[in-house]
Amino acid sequence: MDEPIDHEPSDETDPVLGAYRKSIDNIDAALIHMLAERFRITQAVGRHKARNALPAADPAREERQIARLRALAEQAELDPEFGEKFLRFIIEEVIRHHAQVRDH
Amino acid sequence: MDEPIDHEPSDETDPVLGAYRKSIDNIDAALIHMLAERFRITQAVGRHKARNALPAADPAREERQIARLRALAEQAELDPEFGEKFLRFIIEEVIRHHAQVRDH
Repeated sequence: MDEPIDHEPSDETDPVLGAYRKSIDNIDAALIHMLAERFRITQAVGRHKARNALPAADPAREERQIARLRALAEQAELDPEFGEKFLRFIIEEVIRHHAQVRDH
Repeated sequence: MDEPIDHEPSDETDPVLGAYRKSIDNIDAALIHMLAERFRITQAVGRHKARNALPAADPAREERQIARLRALAEQAELDPEFGEKFLRFIIEEVIRHHAQVRDH
Protein backbone atom coordinates (compact mmCIF):
# COMPACT_ATOMS: atom_id res chain seq x y z
CA MET A 1 0.00 0.00 0.00
CA ASP A 2 1.20 3.49 -0.80
CA GLU A 3 -0.87 5.13 1.94
CA PRO A 4 1.14 7.56 4.05
CA ILE A 5 1.86 6.14 7.52
CA ASP A 6 -0.13 8.80 9.38
CA HIS A 7 -3.16 8.52 7.10
CA GLU A 8 -6.47 8.71 8.99
CA PRO A 9 -8.69 5.64 8.78
CA SER A 10 -11.73 6.08 6.57
CA ASP A 11 -15.24 5.84 8.02
CA GLU A 12 -15.45 2.38 6.43
CA THR A 13 -12.29 0.97 8.04
CA ASP A 14 -13.11 2.61 11.41
CA PRO A 15 -16.90 2.40 11.96
CA VAL A 16 -16.59 3.81 15.50
CA LEU A 17 -15.05 7.00 14.15
CA GLY A 18 -17.53 6.96 11.25
CA ALA A 19 -20.52 6.93 13.62
CA TYR A 20 -19.09 9.78 15.72
CA ARG A 21 -18.53 11.80 12.55
CA LYS A 22 -22.12 11.31 11.40
CA SER A 23 -23.33 12.73 14.72
CA ILE A 24 -20.90 15.65 14.46
CA ASP A 25 -22.08 16.40 10.91
CA ASN A 26 -25.73 16.40 12.03
CA ILE A 27 -24.95 18.73 14.93
CA ASP A 28 -22.94 21.05 12.67
CA ALA A 29 -25.89 21.32 10.27
CA ALA A 30 -28.11 22.23 13.23
CA LEU A 31 -25.55 24.81 14.48
CA ILE A 32 -25.32 26.45 11.03
CA HIS A 33 -29.11 26.75 10.82
CA MET A 34 -29.37 28.15 14.36
CA LEU A 35 -26.61 30.66 13.52
CA ALA A 36 -28.42 31.62 10.30
CA GLU A 37 -31.55 32.35 12.33
CA ARG A 38 -29.54 34.25 14.96
CA PHE A 39 -28.03 36.45 12.24
CA ARG A 40 -31.44 37.08 10.71
CA ILE A 41 -32.48 38.47 14.09
CA THR A 42 -29.30 40.45 14.73
CA GLN A 43 -29.60 41.94 11.23
CA ALA A 44 -33.08 43.15 12.20
CA VAL A 45 -31.58 44.49 15.46
CA GLY A 46 -28.90 46.24 13.40
CA ARG A 47 -31.49 47.94 11.20
CA HIS A 48 -33.53 48.90 14.29
CA LYS A 49 -30.44 50.36 15.97
CA ALA A 50 -29.35 52.24 12.83
CA ARG A 51 -32.87 53.67 12.40
CA ASN A 52 -32.96 54.83 16.02
CA ALA A 53 -29.32 56.00 16.16
CA LEU A 54 -28.52 53.49 18.90
CA PRO A 55 -24.92 52.35 19.47
CA ALA A 56 -23.98 49.03 17.78
CA ALA A 57 -22.45 47.62 20.97
CA ASP A 58 -24.12 47.34 24.37
CA PRO A 59 -21.49 46.30 26.94
CA ALA A 60 -24.00 45.90 29.83
CA ARG A 61 -26.23 43.58 27.76
CA GLU A 62 -23.13 41.63 26.66
CA GLU A 63 -22.02 41.11 30.26
CA ARG A 64 -25.48 39.76 31.15
CA GLN A 65 -25.44 37.45 28.12
CA ILE A 66 -21.99 36.14 29.00
CA ALA A 67 -22.89 35.47 32.64
CA ARG A 68 -26.07 33.65 31.55
CA LEU A 69 -24.30 31.53 28.93
CA ARG A 70 -21.51 30.60 31.34
CA ALA A 71 -24.16 29.32 33.76
CA LEU A 72 -25.95 27.40 30.96
CA ALA A 73 -22.60 25.95 29.82
CA GLU A 74 -21.86 24.72 33.34
CA GLN A 75 -25.27 23.03 33.55
CA ALA A 76 -24.59 21.33 30.20
CA GLU A 77 -21.04 20.34 31.30
CA LEU A 78 -19.48 22.51 28.60
CA ASP A 79 -16.31 24.41 29.59
CA PRO A 80 -17.69 27.86 30.62
CA GLU A 81 -14.50 29.47 29.27
CA PHE A 82 -15.34 28.02 25.88
CA GLY A 83 -18.97 29.15 26.19
CA GLU A 84 -17.76 32.70 26.84
CA LYS A 85 -15.17 32.58 24.02
CA PHE A 86 -17.87 31.34 21.66
CA LEU A 87 -20.32 34.13 22.55
CA ARG A 88 -17.60 36.79 22.23
CA PHE A 89 -16.72 35.38 18.80
CA ILE A 90 -20.36 35.66 17.68
CA ILE A 91 -20.86 39.13 19.20
CA GLU A 92 -17.72 40.47 17.51
CA GLU A 93 -19.08 39.28 14.16
CA VAL A 94 -22.47 40.88 14.87
CA ILE A 95 -20.90 44.22 15.85
CA ARG A 96 -18.81 44.13 12.66
CA HIS A 97 -22.05 43.65 10.69
CA HIS A 98 -23.87 46.41 12.62
CA ALA A 99 -21.02 48.83 11.95
CA GLN A 100 -21.21 47.95 8.23
CA VAL A 101 -24.97 48.60 8.20
CA ARG A 102 -24.41 51.98 9.86
CA ASP A 103 -21.48 52.99 7.62
CA HIS A 104 -23.20 52.21 4.29
CA MET B 1 -32.71 62.24 34.19
CA ASP B 2 -29.07 61.43 34.84
CA GLU B 3 -28.90 58.71 32.19
CA PRO B 4 -25.83 59.01 29.95
CA ILE B 5 -26.78 60.16 26.45
CA ASP B 6 -25.64 56.96 24.72
CA HIS B 7 -27.40 54.67 27.19
CA GLU B 8 -29.12 51.72 25.52
CA PRO B 9 -32.90 51.57 25.90
CA SER B 10 -34.07 48.83 28.24
CA ASP B 11 -36.28 45.99 27.01
CA GLU B 12 -39.21 47.77 28.71
CA THR B 13 -38.74 51.12 26.97
CA ASP B 14 -37.98 49.45 23.62
CA PRO B 15 -40.26 46.39 23.27
CA VAL B 16 -39.10 45.77 19.66
CA LEU B 17 -35.51 45.35 20.85
CA GLY B 18 -36.75 43.38 23.88
CA ALA B 19 -38.55 40.85 21.66
CA TYR B 20 -35.49 40.41 19.42
CA ARG B 21 -33.34 39.85 22.48
CA LYS B 22 -35.64 37.15 23.85
CA SER B 23 -35.30 35.27 20.55
CA ILE B 24 -31.51 35.70 20.60
CA ASP B 25 -31.35 34.40 24.19
CA ASN B 26 -33.41 31.32 23.24
CA ILE B 27 -31.18 30.62 20.24
CA ASP B 28 -28.03 31.09 22.34
CA ALA B 29 -29.29 28.54 24.88
CA ALA B 30 -29.92 26.10 22.00
CA LEU B 31 -26.43 26.79 20.57
CA ILE B 32 -24.75 26.18 23.95
CA HIS B 33 -26.56 22.85 24.34
CA MET B 34 -25.72 21.77 20.78
CA LEU B 35 -22.08 22.72 21.41
CA ALA B 36 -22.09 20.78 24.69
CA GLU B 37 -23.31 17.70 22.81
CA ARG B 38 -20.76 18.26 20.02
CA PHE B 39 -17.95 18.39 22.60
CA ARG B 40 -19.21 15.24 24.29
CA ILE B 41 -18.79 13.50 20.94
CA THR B 42 -15.43 15.06 20.08
CA GLN B 43 -14.16 14.10 23.54
CA ALA B 44 -15.11 10.50 22.74
CA VAL B 45 -13.35 10.91 19.37
CA GLY B 46 -10.30 12.27 21.23
CA ARG B 47 -10.19 9.23 23.52
CA HIS B 48 -10.68 6.90 20.53
CA LYS B 49 -7.84 8.63 18.64
CA ALA B 50 -5.51 8.60 21.68
CA ARG B 51 -6.23 4.88 22.25
CA ASN B 52 -5.50 4.06 18.62
CA ALA B 53 -2.54 6.45 18.26
CA LEU B 54 -4.34 8.41 15.53
CA PRO B 55 -3.32 12.03 14.81
CA ALA B 56 -5.49 14.68 16.55
CA ALA B 57 -5.99 16.67 13.32
CA ASP B 58 -7.31 15.31 10.01
CA PRO B 59 -6.88 18.03 7.36
CA ALA B 60 -8.72 16.05 4.62
CA ARG B 61 -11.77 15.54 6.85
CA GLU B 62 -11.65 19.23 7.84
CA GLU B 63 -11.66 20.34 4.20
CA ARG B 64 -14.72 18.17 3.52
CA GLN B 65 -16.49 19.55 6.62
CA ILE B 66 -15.74 23.14 5.59
CA ALA B 67 -16.98 22.63 2.01
CA ARG B 68 -20.18 21.02 3.32
CA LEU B 69 -20.85 23.72 5.90
CA ARG B 70 -20.22 26.51 3.38
CA ALA B 71 -22.87 24.92 1.13
CA LEU B 72 -25.30 24.58 4.06
CA ALA B 73 -24.62 28.19 5.07
CA GLU B 74 -25.42 29.41 1.55
CA GLN B 75 -28.70 27.48 1.57
CA ALA B 76 -29.59 29.07 4.92
CA GLU B 77 -28.53 32.54 3.67
CA LEU B 78 -25.74 32.72 6.23
CA ASP B 79 -22.46 34.30 5.02
CA PRO B 80 -20.39 31.24 3.98
CA GLU B 81 -17.22 33.04 5.12
CA PHE B 82 -18.71 33.25 8.60
CA GLY B 83 -19.80 29.58 8.43
CA GLU B 84 -16.22 28.62 7.63
CA LYS B 85 -14.74 30.92 10.31
CA PHE B 86 -17.14 29.42 12.85
CA LEU B 87 -16.21 25.81 12.02
CA ARG B 88 -12.47 26.61 12.11
CA PHE B 89 -12.97 28.23 15.53
CA ILE B 90 -14.69 25.07 16.82
CA ILE B 91 -12.16 22.69 15.22
CA GLU B 92 -9.21 24.62 16.72
CA GLU B 93 -10.78 24.25 20.16
CA VAL B 94 -11.35 20.52 19.59
CA ILE B 95 -7.75 19.96 18.44
CA ARG B 96 -6.50 21.85 21.50
CA HIS B 97 -8.58 19.46 23.66
CA HIS B 98 -7.37 16.36 21.76
CA ALA B 99 -3.75 17.42 22.21
CA GLN B 100 -4.40 17.89 25.96
CA VAL B 101 -5.92 14.37 26.19
CA ARG B 102 -2.90 12.92 24.40
CA ASP B 103 -0.33 14.83 26.43
CA HIS B 104 -1.72 13.94 29.88
